Amino acid sequence: MAKEIPEAFKHLLADNRVFAHLGTSMPDGSPQVNPVWFDAEGPYIRVNSAKGRQKDKNMRRFPKVALELLDPDNPYRYLQIRGKVVEITEDGADAHINTLAKKYLGKDTYPFRQPGEVRVIYKIEPERVSAWG
Amino acid sequence: MAKEIPEAFKHLLADNRVFAHLGTSMPDGSPQVNPVWFDAEGPYIRVNSAKGRQKDKNMRRFPKVALELLDPDNPYRYLQIRGKVVEITEDGADAHINTLAKKYLGKDTYPFRQPGEVRVIYKIEPERVSAWG
Repeated sequence: MAKEIPEAFKHLLADNRVFAHLGTSMPDGSPQVNPVWFDAEGPYIRVNSAKGRQKDKNMRRFPKVALELLDPDNPYRYLQIRGKVVEITEDGADAHINTLAKKYLGKDTYPFRQPGEVRVIYKIEPERVSAWG
Repeated sequence: MAKEIPEAFKHLLADNRVFAHLGTSMPDGSPQVNPVWFDAEGPYIRVNSAKGRQKDKNMRRFPKVALELLDPDNPYRYLQIRGKVVEITEDGADAHINTLAKKYLGKDTYPFRQPGEVRVIYKIEPERVSAWG
């Protein structure tokens, strides 16, 4: 069962100023952290990347991640989520990156697409959620 | 040899709006991400935590970390640093947390101290630095 985001912090899921700081694991077990766009689908957090990138390779190899969401109005208030990647799929990933472009940029179409890029959705089930501040 | 931060990104080290998003590794190899205060000491990045916290335990067990520093004026511009913790010490850690309180809050003394808390400095040597945007 996915752990729920506390009600008082759910606004962070929809705020377009909030990036997820996504932690993944490198082959030697050391962490990597990237800012990423995300959205919520029911109890899941979805992020979107492109096939072959470091975080794509990391999540395929070791599907455990961490997400930190910082309140843009109070940097001492944040959500810390740890969870597992329960689905990795190209199905719907082009539509999903456009949805995220709409959320973050107000644009109907993702403007940063690279030639040949294959978009991928990673569906994350929160297993541990801590709210701070 | 510590990898250098590119000149055009060095302003992020001194900007009090910039928190480091610190990735550490849990016992099972999964990542944890927390926002932390930091400063630079020569080529090193220093963070400060308290003994016994999860990130303290993680860095003592596995001294490899990642730091993401996001430009507050452009969220598509950021630094990604991966490195090793080359020193963990309580010496000077009380003075250091006060220095960070000055940087981030403009206060001479760290105001969030908990009774019995033992402060610790983690000195991080950047081994890989990527600048984005």
